[in-house]
Amino acid sequence: MKLHTSPRAPNPRRVDMFIAEKGIVGIAREYVDLNAGAHRTPAFFARNPMSRVPVLELDDGRHLAESRAICTYLEGLHPEPNLMGVDAEERAFIEMADRQVEFHLFGTLANWVRHTHPGLAPLENPQFPDFGLAQKEKMLEAARILDTRLASQPWIAGSRFTVADITAFCAVEFARLVKFKPSDAGLTHLAAWRDRVAARPSAQL
Amino acid sequence: MKLHTSPRAPNPRRVDMFIAEKGIVGIAREYVDLNAGAHRTPAFFARNPMSRVPVLELDDGRHLAESRAICTYLEGLHPEPNLMGVDAEERAFIEMADRQVEFHLFGTLANWVRHTHPGLAPLENPQFPDFGLAQKEKMLEAARILDTRLASQPWIAGSRFTVADITAFCAVEFARLVKFKPSDAGLTHLAAWRDRVAARPSAQL
Repeated sequence: MKLHTSPRAPNPRRVDMFIAEKGIVGIAREYVDLNAGAHRTPAFFARNPMSRVPVLELDDGRHLAESRAICTYLEGLHPEPNLMGVDAEERAFIEMADRQVEFHLFGTLANWVRHTHPGLAPLENPQFPDFGLAQKEKMLEAARILDTRLASQPWIAGSRFTVADITAFCAVEFARLVKFKPSDAGLTHLAAWRDRVAARPSAQL
Repeated sequence: MKLHTSPRAPNPRRVDMFIAEKGIVGIAREYVDLNAGAHRTPAFFARNPMSRVPVLELDDGRHLAESRAICTYLEGLHPEPNLMGVDAEERAFIEMADRQVEFHLFGTLANWVRHTHPGLAPLENPQFPDFGLAQKEKMLEAARILDTRLASQPWIAGSRFTVADITAFCAVEFARLVKFKPSDAGLTHLAAWRDRVAARPSAQL
């Protein structure tokens, strides 16, 4: 298997952390230079017409895109430690938590960053800075909801570490680009959770 | 079980179609008046702090939000007909297709509609019409990719009808609000696929 990916981008980091949490070894990396437009070449369109990283190339030649779908596939190959639910019921509740983080924290933040940060201008063209700035309040609302949740449970989806923590952590770390830190925002539970995740070996990548 | 939902909204329609395809009966509906702000009341926040419909209330009192997570749960209770994959590998490939549709077709369209349509002003405040209009080209790019895909396979994820077809169909039908039709855009394969889905009993809701 080979992972077509890009260092430092938040979605690739989700898959990298997932692989590290699973202890999976032996997946080769091929780096795609997003700033050079390497994700918008015919060779890459053949891997993923949606021109996004990461993409997992399987040994049979098929390509699997979408970070969370790659995690689903790897969870099937490497069931332990379980990160996405042991049965359909738990999978559903973890998926809820993961999607809530992905849409309301990660998605709003991504729009905030992509539409306001000069470094993202090559990828988001044209930028709409007013729209981007308006996402800040939506992202903060989601962060406050998570902060409240983390006052009464240790992890995003409940009592154990799951893929939802990976998604949320990659979002919060990505938020440094717009100088957002849970501790600065007075979100003490979210900040403590962030530090718990940051201490894991999978976060050291 | 009780579904807290809203008629005519596209995400609730995804769950309604999924339930109809499964032939599940006996799920009560409680309608939430979004235009009246009924999704932003303390009672609703207790069901889903993210204030989105639909939310499935289970018989044990727990609440499950997020359309796709609700589908995952219902697929566990009612495995046939399978709509989300019979094992982790197929689940992953269907999840890829479903997410590609959700982010690149549904997501861009939703921003196009929410930021430009006067009827959505109460839900998307403030609107950013320039940003909204710029989503049109992104949505069309995704629609063209799907059109190409549907030239060589009958359904969005491959050879059989899946949850990804439900997501894509609800997006395409929602696009009528901005007067987008695959046939008008010259996307003949997408238009033929749309008609195939529209002929299913689950699409008559």
